[in-house]
Amino acid sequence: MTEVEVIAHKLAKKQKEISVAEFFERNKHILGFGNPTRALLTSVKEGVDNALDACEESGILPDIYIEVRNHEDGECTLIIEDNGPGIIKKQIPHIFGRLLYGSRFHAILQSRGQQGIGISAVVLYSQLTTGKHAKITSKIQEDRPATVTELAIDTNKNRAEVISRDIVHWEKPSGTRLEVSIVADYKRGKRFVYDYLQSTSIVNPHAQITFKEPDGTQHLFERISEALPTKSIEIKPHPYGIELGTLIKMAKMTKSRKLSSFLKSEFSSMGERTTNAVCEKAQLDKELDPKKMYREQFLALHKAFKKVKIMAPSTDCLSPIGETLIKRSLKHETQEISPEFIYTASRPASVYSGSPFQIEVGIVYGGSLPKDKPVKLLRFANRVPLLYQQGDCVSTAAISSIDWRRYGFDQPSGRGIPSGPAIFLTHMSSTLIPFTSESKEAIADIPEIENEIKLAFRECARKVQSHIHKEIKRAKTREKFDLITKILPEIARKSADMLDKTVPSIDAVITKIMDVVWIEDLIEYEKASSKPAQSTLFEDPSGPQDGGWITKSNVLVVNYKNTPQKFNLYAVIPEDAVVGTVTPKPAKITNHYIKWNLETLEPANKIDVSFELAGLDKGDFDENDLYIENINAAYVIGADKWEGE
Amino acid sequence: MTEVEVIAHKLAKKQKEISVAEFFERNKHILGFGNPTRALLTSVKEGVDNALDACEESGILPDIYIEVRNHEDGECTLIIEDNGPGIIKKQIPHIFGRLLYGSRFHAILQSRGQQGIGISAVVLYSQLTTGKHAKITSKIQEDRPATVTELAIDTNKNRAEVISRDIVHWEKPSGTRLEVSIVADYKRGKRFVYDYLQSTSIVNPHAQITFKEPDGTQHLFERISEALPTKSIEIKPHPYGIELGTLIKMAKMTKSRKLSSFLKSEFSSMGERTTNAVCEKAQLDKELDPKKMYREQFLALHKAFKKVKIMAPSTDCLSPIGETLIKRSLKHETQEISPEFIYTASRPASVYSGSPFQIEVGIVYGGSLPKDKPVKLLRFANRVPLLYQQGDCVSTAAISSIDWRRYGFDQPSGRGIPSGPAIFLTHMSSTLIPFTSESKEAIADIPEIENEIKLAFRECARKVQSHIHKEIKRAKTREKFDLITKILPEIARKSADMLDKTVPSIDAVITKIMDVVWIEDLIEYEKASSKPAQSTLFEDPSGPQDGGWITKSNVLVVNYKNTPQKFNLYAVIPEDAVVGTVTPKPAKITNHYIKWNLETLEPANKIDVSFELAGLDKGDFDENDLYIENINAAYVIGADKWEGE
Repeated sequence: MTEVEVIAHKLAKKQKEISVAEFFERNKHILGFGNPTRALLTSVKEGVDNALDACEESGILPDIYIEVRNHEDGECTLIIEDNGPGIIKKQIPHIFGRLLYGSRFHAILQSRGQQGIGISAVVLYSQLTTGKHAKITSKIQEDRPATVTELAIDTNKNRAEVISRDIVHWEKPSGTRLEVSIVADYKRGKRFVYDYLQSTSIVNPHAQITFKEPDGTQHLFERISEALPTKSIEIKPHPYGIELGTLIKMAKMTKSRKLSSFLKSEFSSMGERTTNAVCEKAQLDKELDPKKMYREQFLALHKAFKKVKIMAPSTDCLSPIGETLIKRSLKHETQEISPEFIYTASRPASVYSGSPFQIEVGIVYGGSLPKDKPVKLLRFANRVPLLYQQGDCVSTAAISSIDWRRYGFDQPSGRGIPSGPAIFLTHMSSTLIPFTSESKEAIADIPEIENEIKLAFRECARKVQSHIHKEIKRAKTREKFDLITKILPEIARKSADMLDKTVPSIDAVITKIMDVVWIEDLIEYEKASSKPAQSTLFEDPSGPQDGGWITKSNVLVVNYKNTPQKFNLYAVIPEDAVVGTVTPKPAKITNHYIKWNLETLEPANKIDVSFELAGLDKGDFDENDLYIENINAAYVIGADKWEGE
Repeated sequence: MTEVEVIAHKLAKKQKEISVAEFFERNKHILGFGNPTRALLTSVKEGVDNALDACEESGILPDIYIEVRNHEDGECTLIIEDNGPGIIKKQIPHIFGRLLYGSRFHAILQSRGQQGIGISAVVLYSQLTTGKHAKITSKIQEDRPATVTELAIDTNKNRAEVISRDIVHWEKPSGTRLEVSIVADYKRGKRFVYDYLQSTSIVNPHAQITFKEPDGTQHLFERISEALPTKSIEIKPHPYGIELGTLIKMAKMTKSRKLSSFLKSEFSSMGERTTNAVCEKAQLDKELDPKKMYREQFLALHKAFKKVKIMAPSTDCLSPIGETLIKRSLKHETQEISPEFIYTASRPASVYSGSPFQIEVGIVYGGSLPKDKPVKLLRFANRVPLLYQQGDCVSTAAISSIDWRRYGFDQPSGRGIPSGPAIFLTHMSSTLIPFTSESKEAIADIPEIENEIKLAFRECARKVQSHIHKEIKRAKTREKFDLITKILPEIARKSADMLDKTVPSIDAVITKIMDVVWIEDLIEYEKASSKPAQSTLFEDPSGPQDGGWITKSNVLVVNYKNTPQKFNLYAVIPEDAVVGTVTPKPAKITNHYIKWNLETLEPANKIDVSFELAGLDKGDFDENDLYIENINAAYVIGADKWEGE
């Protein structure tokens, strides 16, 4: 031992624990409070996301009120109020005054909040920037008073300091109200708040959102559906992609005494047969005590998971937005643009690191969208719009890695965000969205997710491309058609006149020149009568509400070939539409399409096909997607070859 | 009370604390472990950054050894070893087995690690993906044995679980060695590791880094300077930009009994006079007990901070890379490109949220860099290269917001990353780098920082632009010059021949046609002799090392005007260069420039100016930056008007 102090000992004196609240107090930008503009949006977002989750979890149609009171010196008071189930008195300090505390972290189900950080971060930011306390009012039962709690956060301990508690009368049957003062740039930030609330309301049509500005202006985003989204079910982890360390940890904590029961009871998609197959592949005795297994045995089990075909996770735990809402959202974004068309694509559920997820995308094309600017990207995760950190999001990476030149977009060097008159929307739903940071604005670049987004966009892009091709082909044929159907009869008429003969039928001639089956269509919308029609087809409870719309699609098929034609016609329909009257009698109606086995069509003859759809808004279905079968697609204008579902 | 359970009570049962280790176990992508390629780099980076910090803190020249052993199935063993001060036995479980624990979080000084998360995150990732324990060897004193600790992390508690402890003999005088097994994609990841180590070595020339690949290949990044970077000093927070909440918290915890002593002892740049001014502006009694102040008083104090001119924070706490190292780094990046020139710009220290920071930037231009591709961005924070999340970094935002078309770059719509044959480097040094997430790859978009980066790049871009202009002007004059100095004498000689007369002096004619002062220069490098020259100018201890280089700059000034000229010449020199022989005798030498008051130069006369620089590598100084004073700059080719320092 020397007299001189060893450096390591000197350094050891500086080593200290850092409380998570202290950490985020110092690194508030990580939570999305990096500047006063963004801090406003983050605060609103955390409050609204929490409110939506709480309501949905409890089966309550959300009614959310947001108010910003603008004071001097860039300080705002923010009020967020919901009609959710309320929070019991004892939990209020934990939920609002403690970071990393919550109910949704340990549950595998789709929710907006997952981290147990968001709302307490708002309180932390408020305290840091204004030194004021947060005030939480909560009522949990109709016949009881509400409690008002004022609290601060002791950042050294990451615990709430309750300043005062009170009991008040509150009109609401139940609910929670948060009032905080924050440093925020309202002038610059309000646009983001408005955009966020609007997008949120579009993909959450069951929510009613009221936003009151400091000057008293009130914006109401109305509830347009009384149906809560399908409640997502809590599930167990799926064996695909689960980390070895997680598997070991689960085995250490299980109550099962046998490997087989451990696998069957703590994982999803592990039935008797799959469990047996996995154990066999891993060469492990099903009777093994999971608590006593070695690392090598877990490793074998972990490898066996990948080698055995295991059913995809149940998608009950996921609540995708759905084609119609995506289209509606995109339409809303583009109402002043009158785009040419909107396409969507939805992937089946997949898994990354044991967590199920699903990707939906949409492309709006044309109209007055600028042709020489990069396409605009819209991003959503679990129905929450993402407004910041686009550059760092997996969706951006996925889109950038596609060669969009193949689909008619401008993209120097075949990488990067393409330019063109389009908006691209991406939605990821998952039981665990892998955000790049606690501010939850960008999704991490995880290969499985990137791949699914790419596949979805490729599918969507192909539709765009096929639409454009179809349009070009149809336009060319239309030209020929116009020429023939207008000029030939004119010639026939004039010749007959001159020769003083009756006008000859030239159908055969036209047919000979055209040599195609011509399909064209028209879509109309009609207000549904207040009382549903008597048709049994409309008995579905999600059918047209009072004042809803009926979409009427009319398809004209003309045989301009010189031989009789007999073929099948398919019309693809939105999954959430309810089918009304269909003529002629269809051969099949599924969730996805209507199929007709058309009668033999003689040359120069035509047939009218029509169908009605309910349960959609005006404009939700604005383009027929038609396919033909049992006929050479090269002879048909206006429909593509049916490739199966 | 009803029989039915209130929803809020049901929900309360699910509310739980989340340990920070659990949080990151679930969200490993936030820490930079989102995919196996990136996980490799993140692991190496956390280890190397930690090792560099530990060595520098203890005044030890870092000698770091990294080894990757590639096993099957994408599992690697990673070894990171340093010659730092070691870690005492008791602290090892905390430092490696507990997140949010460290020595640098609470200190305001520039260091690579600040979060107390990095290295324990590597251990966490290792455990999660391979289920193996981490092995840490540490020796704190030459005459004592080393300890070997094997540990795991109990993620439910965020505490280390020590598996075994042992004592071994280790050759090193002191040091730390970490051995972990991780799931990583070595094949894809090694390029990033190599890039990171190379860039690290360039901006940390005092470090020796050895990297051993799985196949035994060994890369040595040699130490090229024996001088440790100036040790950054721990400072107190600066009043500018400090959050109100932080101020209140500091006042609650202070030992000072008076407001004045609180301000003077716990803030930087608060002397007697500034303290008085602040108290007066805030209308607060200096004798107030800071512990008993009200929020409104703090608010007044907080506002007063902004209204009083307070000296910028001391930059002792910052350790910028410096112009020379930046140039060297950029040169290294571009060695196969032979760029036309490299410019750098360095901003004075500034403050955001009470933390001092400094921005340095550099631009490489020309050579074989592609003209039609976006410029390449290189980013550093506290001498650590940032390789991921470029899209989300404040430097990208700052660069994108400049209209680069003004500086000759291609940039459709005047926003976004410009295209052109250039590389842009940004370095931020700060006592607290506001990273967007715990993975420390992107800096948050904080207005003060964005602004400084913009200012630095604008300054640098002006240099680029002026260089290009100067080159064009010089090229034009050179053409004229060549014509005159070669063709006129030829004509004179031929005419004299023909007339059989002696060749006339045509200097006057040339002078009349040229009508400029012509300045041209040449830079040469010479190996310094092993023993420093006897000149007293070389006595500086940081002078040329054995085998160093002497940079010799020769400047030729010719008066091609038809009147005598008398003016001053300035040569700007790198701050870290040591000036050797200078002729003629200079009027002034500072850290930044050499000034000559040149003697009157008669028409057609010339003067040779030269100077030597030591302490630089060959090529560090490769372009003279010359200015003139007391002469109309329009008459001078090869130097600009001196605008003061």
